[in-house]
Amino acid sequence: MSADAYPPTDRTTPSRLRERVGYDRAAVHAVLDEATVCHVGFVVDGRPVVLPQLHVRVGDDLYLHGSTGARALRTAAEGGLEVCVTVTLIDGLVLARSAFNHSVNYRSVVAQGRAELVRDEQDKAAVLAALVESVVPGRSSGSRPADRRELAATALLRLPLREVSLKTRSGPPSDDPEDLDLPHWTGVLPLSVRRGEPVAAPGLAEAPVPEHVRAWAAQD
Amino acid sequence: MSADAYPPTDRTTPSRLRERVGYDRAAVHAVLDEATVCHVGFVVDGRPVVLPQLHVRVGDDLYLHGSTGARALRTAAEGGLEVCVTVTLIDGLVLARSAFNHSVNYRSVVAQGRAELVRDEQDKAAVLAALVESVVPGRSSGSRPADRRELAATALLRLPLREVSLKTRSGPPSDDPEDLDLPHWTGVLPLSVRRGEPVAAPGLAEAPVPEHVRAWAAQD
Repeated sequence: MSADAYPPTDRTTPSRLRERVGYDRAAVHAVLDEATVCHVGFVVDGRPVVLPQLHVRVGDDLYLHGSTGARALRTAAEGGLEVCVTVTLIDGLVLARSAFNHSVNYRSVVAQGRAELVRDEQDKAAVLAALVESVVPGRSSGSRPADRRELAATALLRLPLREVSLKTRSGPPSDDPEDLDLPHWTGVLPLSVRRGEPVAAPGLAEAPVPEHVRAWAAQD
Repeated sequence: MSADAYPPTDRTTPSRLRERVGYDRAAVHAVLDEATVCHVGFVVDGRPVVLPQLHVRVGDDLYLHGSTGARALRTAAEGGLEVCVTVTLIDGLVLARSAFNHSVNYRSVVAQGRAELVRDEQDKAAVLAALVESVVPGRSSGSRPADRRELAATALLRLPLREVSLKTRSGPPSDDPEDLDLPHWTGVLPLSVRRGEPVAAPGLAEAPVPEHVRAWAAQD
């Protein structure tokens, strides 16, 4: 296993459909970077909680930004919070001739480990800027940076990427041989993310749309 | 609290930003029905696992279809598996004048409870048909239904919708009063799901695209 891949562990080795699972570092990073939100799971009173959060990857650290509740943050502050962070991109609906072989084309990263609270003010400022920049490149200099009060009010968790896997399905449907002569249409219905026209806030002075916003929309 | 809303519980009452949380049954159902996938969290060895799965709502039951691993399925079969099912739709990026007030417009349902394995063959057949139908209306009669062997190989979990909440953010950015004169552009960058042109499977005989597939694509 080279440094270009995350080493598989018991938890990241599936019991079935192993051909869909990979550990390539660049492929994992690409999915994390493309997705707007992740879903963060943690345990409260022995029961699971899953919340959507914003994330940004910086090297081999994944940073999470969002409300997890005071208790989870306290746990994170006191030695770490066990989390499972899952990021899923949906690429298409796969219509097979049989209902059973219907599927979805997707790319999904699962990262497990212990997340810790980011405490250092400079680290927090850098991660917040990276987060804004990851959502809209150019935006961190197109907005006012967080001040000390805002940084203090921001909870950020850091999850080192160690136990990580990428599951994907792509391509056409896989029908059973005995179904190939059925008269049903079969193929893929593509899904992707559409970027709409920017909507200026009410009351915004008649100002030109800045380059970073135009560049974002132009990528649709 | 009327029957048109899910009764709030300790677990579904947030400690902050309460104005973003609701319990309206129709609004919850609309989000569940619009989303292609959910993220299902459960606990294994005291640690969280979050996996993307397909889901379909039938009345006030949410059915989950996807691989959770043999152990989770065994737990589900032996009295139920505690799950947290989270469904998130992203509607836009919210660019405020300050980095701190950047946000996301979204609709997210969190449903918690004990999921049980669906055992009855007729129930399984009906739910699988409903699942196919929910992804592409008309598709359940446009494909071969599952046979007994396929039904036996399909694991379905049923989560009664009881502890459920809907969190939403919509509308323009909320800037602090002291930031309103900053020269930064502010507004919303809309995001939505694009439906692409159907791609027929290789080798598919030259057959017309059926009405249910054309209707799906026409909704883009």
